[in-house]
Amino acid sequence: MSGSASFFQIENAEGGGAAVIVCEHASNDLGTMPGALGLSAEQCLAHIAWDPGALGVAKGLSALLDATLIHATASRLIYDLNRPPDAAGAMAARSELHDIPGNRDLPVAQRLARTETHYIPFHAALFALLSRRLARGRPTALITVHSFSPLYFGVRREVEFGIIHDADDRLARAILARRTGLVTRLNDPYSAADGVAHTLALHATPLGLAHAMLEIRNDLIATPRAQRAMADRLAPTIRDALREAL
Amino acid sequence: MSGSASFFQIENAEGGGAAVIVCEHASNDLGTMPGALGLSAEQCLAHIAWDPGALGVAKGLSALLDATLIHATASRLIYDLNRPPDAAGAMAARSELHDIPGNRDLPVAQRLARTETHYIPFHAALFALLSRRLARGRPTALITVHSFSPLYFGVRREVEFGIIHDADDRLARAILARRTGLVTRLNDPYSAADGVAHTLALHATPLGLAHAMLEIRNDLIATPRAQRAMADRLAPTIRDALREAL
Repeated sequence: MSGSASFFQIENAEGGGAAVIVCEHASNDLGTMPGALGLSAEQCLAHIAWDPGALGVAKGLSALLDATLIHATASRLIYDLNRPPDAAGAMAARSELHDIPGNRDLPVAQRLARTETHYIPFHAALFALLSRRLARGRPTALITVHSFSPLYFGVRREVEFGIIHDADDRLARAILARRTGLVTRLNDPYSAADGVAHTLALHATPLGLAHAMLEIRNDLIATPRAQRAMADRLAPTIRDALREAL
Repeated sequence: MSGSASFFQIENAEGGGAAVIVCEHASNDLGTMPGALGLSAEQCLAHIAWDPGALGVAKGLSALLDATLIHATASRLIYDLNRPPDAAGAMAARSELHDIPGNRDLPVAQRLARTETHYIPFHAALFALLSRRLARGRPTALITVHSFSPLYFGVRREVEFGIIHDADDRLARAILARRTGLVTRLNDPYSAADGVAHTLALHATPLGLAHAMLEIRNDLIATPRAQRAMADRLAPTIRDALREAL
């Protein structure tokens, strides 16, 4: 991979907080893809290309919790970093109601190239970052930050804040037990059984790390101001929950 | 890590077989450690430093199954690649009846350096190798090859061939169901509950790969000839089991 561009960023690498924050769906950048995969400008702004608002919340939490943040800088339609390379959704040809023409019948060489350019370096960097923390004896929890659409296949979702876990529910339940003023549910609107917890399964579970995937309804974090407010709202809850779970 | 020596090797990288074989405890080389960690020559040959015979069997299986093999080239007393960086056993100060003077009260900088030199590159390479196979749509199973001591804390072990699994027992049970002529047991002399299945938990389980950890009693594979014979004995069993489990 040496010499090639990287499609992720690490911020606050030496942050003193216990959380490591991950935002796999931070970007809707399709810049490297010919013809933007055949999508309209409107589709590129929609949740199929990224998790709108998630990066703003993740950055806010990183600042408030002094947490290291790793986030993608390319759209999940090029490679969904929260899916393994053999999953249909890793390079989705269809997302909810939308066809993704540029992902249809992808040749194996293209699947391999995207895996080598996006998936492997991102997760290798996260693995190295976590391994170094454990070698140094630092308390560590893994928190992934996502957003979800208020309408999905035409159905309105009531939940505002979903907390999802993989094998270990310590941190998720500690967050759930605290008041945020949001309509909050455990393993809703998705759960690990839907295959949405790949990053947690790949990193947190084998290393025995407390972990949670935070899903925020994207109409609540549509502007930078709303994203900052959401980070302000969630940070004390997460700080207390980390203290309980670690 | 660029420019530093690597402490693993990959053989038969383009092997056509479904198995990827891992041998974490292949080597007793303490070459880079000052004073060989304070151990006698006899201790360096003993099972505390490596899994005697395991690499010979792993190479034999790699040849017979046309399987890619990745193996360590440094002793597990420097870093036990089958343990996460925060485990006491990753850089053990005591192994069975033996003190390891050079690992006593290791400074954090030394734990970090060994993690960066041994653990991270080995598992990053294995992760990349498996991810590329999945991107290419290749059927893939993960098999780790180990050996164990006939005497442990003075007690004689009757089992000759142990088959250990992490979350998914498909391949382990498919091997167990076949005749090898060996005294064979499932999850014996260890099991995942003892923390010995880290490589499987880190790579096979999150990627949904069929997997097994093979443990062979080391008095049965003490010579190159015996190692080849063991590979000849096990290869047809594993080939059939892979066909059933994949």
